[in-house]
Amino acid sequence: MNTISPAQINTLENGSSRTCWERPVDQLTGFEITEEFERFNQKYDMFNRAVWDDEVRSDRSRRFFESYFTDLAQFRKVEGFQHRDYALRNAAWYIADFTSDLLEMSQDRKEGFLDSYTMFREGATRKTEAPAEYNSAELKRAGIFLGADAIGICDFDERWVYTHNYSRQKLTDKRMDLPEDMTSVVVIINEMHHQTIETVPSALSGAATGQGYSRDIIAVLSVTQFIRNLGYRAVASLNDTALSIPLAVQAGLGQYGRHGLLITPEFGPRVRIAKIFTDLPLVPDAPIDFGVTETCNMCRRCSDGCPVKAISFGAPDFDRHDGISHVKGVKKWTINAKKCFQYWANQGTDCSICIRVCPYNKDFRKRFNRGLRWMLSNRWRRLALWLDRKLKYGQRKPAGWWWRQPSA
Amino acid sequence: MNTISPAQINTLENGSSRTCWERPVDQLTGFEITEEFERFNQKYDMFNRAVWDDEVRSDRSRRFFESYFTDLAQFRKVEGFQHRDYALRNAAWYIADFTSDLLEMSQDRKEGFLDSYTMFREGATRKTEAPAEYNSAELKRAGIFLGADAIGICDFDERWVYTHNYSRQKLTDKRMDLPEDMTSVVVIINEMHHQTIETVPSALSGAATGQGYSRDIIAVLSVTQFIRNLGYRAVASLNDTALSIPLAVQAGLGQYGRHGLLITPEFGPRVRIAKIFTDLPLVPDAPIDFGVTETCNMCRRCSDGCPVKAISFGAPDFDRHDGISHVKGVKKWTINAKKCFQYWANQGTDCSICIRVCPYNKDFRKRFNRGLRWMLSNRWRRLALWLDRKLKYGQRKPAGWWWRQPSA
Repeated sequence: MNTISPAQINTLENGSSRTCWERPVDQLTGFEITEEFERFNQKYDMFNRAVWDDEVRSDRSRRFFESYFTDLAQFRKVEGFQHRDYALRNAAWYIADFTSDLLEMSQDRKEGFLDSYTMFREGATRKTEAPAEYNSAELKRAGIFLGADAIGICDFDERWVYTHNYSRQKLTDKRMDLPEDMTSVVVIINEMHHQTIETVPSALSGAATGQGYSRDIIAVLSVTQFIRNLGYRAVASLNDTALSIPLAVQAGLGQYGRHGLLITPEFGPRVRIAKIFTDLPLVPDAPIDFGVTETCNMCRRCSDGCPVKAISFGAPDFDRHDGISHVKGVKKWTINAKKCFQYWANQGTDCSICIRVCPYNKDFRKRFNRGLRWMLSNRWRRLALWLDRKLKYGQRKPAGWWWRQPSA
Repeated sequence: MNTISPAQINTLENGSSRTCWERPVDQLTGFEITEEFERFNQKYDMFNRAVWDDEVRSDRSRRFFESYFTDLAQFRKVEGFQHRDYALRNAAWYIADFTSDLLEMSQDRKEGFLDSYTMFREGATRKTEAPAEYNSAELKRAGIFLGADAIGICDFDERWVYTHNYSRQKLTDKRMDLPEDMTSVVVIINEMHHQTIETVPSALSGAATGQGYSRDIIAVLSVTQFIRNLGYRAVASLNDTALSIPLAVQAGLGQYGRHGLLITPEFGPRVRIAKIFTDLPLVPDAPIDFGVTETCNMCRRCSDGCPVKAISFGAPDFDRHDGISHVKGVKKWTINAKKCFQYWANQGTDCSICIRVCPYNKDFRKRFNRGLRWMLSNRWRRLALWLDRKLKYGQRKPAGWWWRQPSA
């Protein structure tokens, strides 16, 4: 266990020496952290910059956001961007939008995107008193029951917590309100819909994003209420409060990929991540290695597939493109988030081409695909990548193909 | 198509002759409706009677309701009723509780249970103009995508709409606010969790109820937003506004069983039902017959299994036990709802023994169980029912068995 003592947290707050940013868990995740490391301020993520930064903000970015919540009167004739596609995309976002809008005007909280969730019942006043091993097993059992597709646990790690929240109403930083004495993080992932992702780029594929978020939110809210009902504290978070990917990697749910996304064994990069900070005694999971780093070293499907070349062709490094939209002092592949987002704004919906073409984006309920995944973990990797192209995995399918299929 | 013209609806409002309550669809569903028929007033359902009727209201019924939303300080030692079981049950109810509580104090709307849902974005101002056949196919495709386990369509049928809503705050009837010009009903079902239902009676199995509701609510809200995004009106409903079972039967999702529950081919009686009233042009589905009536005529598993003998051992009839908690003038098996609810109140959680023991409550992903279902539809029915008992289907499993299993 890599528990961080309160003393270490204080060191973190004022940290200046190189060693204080390293953690034993980095030996298992492969994260390289240097003295340049700085915790990230959410103000600098691309969605917030589209609000305050003239380098990113444009008429197109404004229309991009508006298309999610205004009258859907403008539609293109082209397949995948028609009325039904936008209607489904925005319906799939229903839960995510509803929960993030609920307290925005009255309390300046955009929960799930800029602030953690607060919409819970009081829990039990009496704590359950089971050992951490029991708690962990029962929490996972409950989590899957409550809608998580996979669930992992890591120790609390303040490195990935944002320095500040951000208010899009006031265009200012807000104080980070996460309690300092949380001991564990429960990380939840939910699969995004496979077939609609195959139609990227399209508004239809944006429905997979919304649906993935909505399912993730249901699970994380319900599991949070479960922990509270056990008598402990729990703070539920989606994209707010902390970087999700390093926590998911530390919780043993997957590895970091060239496209800057988590790659999981079950669903590849086709997932959404949520997390819960808690003081329920839990045993952390061990990070996993199923060969992703070696595969990404060899593969360029996402770099080749990205229409605006926002994904690195090179080795992991400290390059940060326009500098401010990425956590500093971590050696990794980093995407050019500005180019990426501008492509979204230009086409009027989000893009997941890097997910569609990733060799790990497969239906692993199929034995053959599990075979390919096995090959990607060993010396057959190059053959697996060659097969992946030859068998035309990751090719775009037309949105009409999806709509025409019979329903189960 | 059995479309009801506005003239017929007016007849319904003032209906007095026998024939005006009958509908062509009754030939397909087998419903027998007499001149005694009266639309149901939700005031008389058992949950509302527990609020206003001293015949039902008691300290135990009050504690039963409170256990869902007060501090979980009282737990029994007995397996299935411990702290973790109640913690999971109430977490599984999270979405249902949250959505029904949201407007209760401010607007006297208990949405999903006493009032239809109103928490939607504006839809499109321009309607899509596809033919009803296209709308139906695309709606089903979208519905499954948005989380419905099954989805069916029937024509609007005012017979099953409550005469009034009910306010538990004011203890009075409220005006039914469903628009009169809805033309179709989209019925959505979601499966309740199989394994936890096997532990009935237990607080743990109550988690399956909550989880079924929560998943159903997500689906019905999202599909409603989808229809609105297509430019049409849509009213989302769970237990409020209308009787769900006859609409589900008319929408081809299943048949009516001896225990008073919908029995579906996919999940047997282990489902929750929601519905959407809409003016989107749609083609109704045909009711189905897979032998349920003949099976229930022969089988008494639920009547035998019910600890308070609230389920009829006889033939379908017009008997209504204590008279007021059931729709009048429909020939059917009718449970004694008062006995049923009092058992819930006494044990401190809901009961689903009649679901657990039903021969249709099986995991039909298994080929063998599909074989038994096939036998229940033909002359092998008696053998199938014999096998069902011999193979000990429907036996109670201990809650600890469920908690101890490894998570996926």
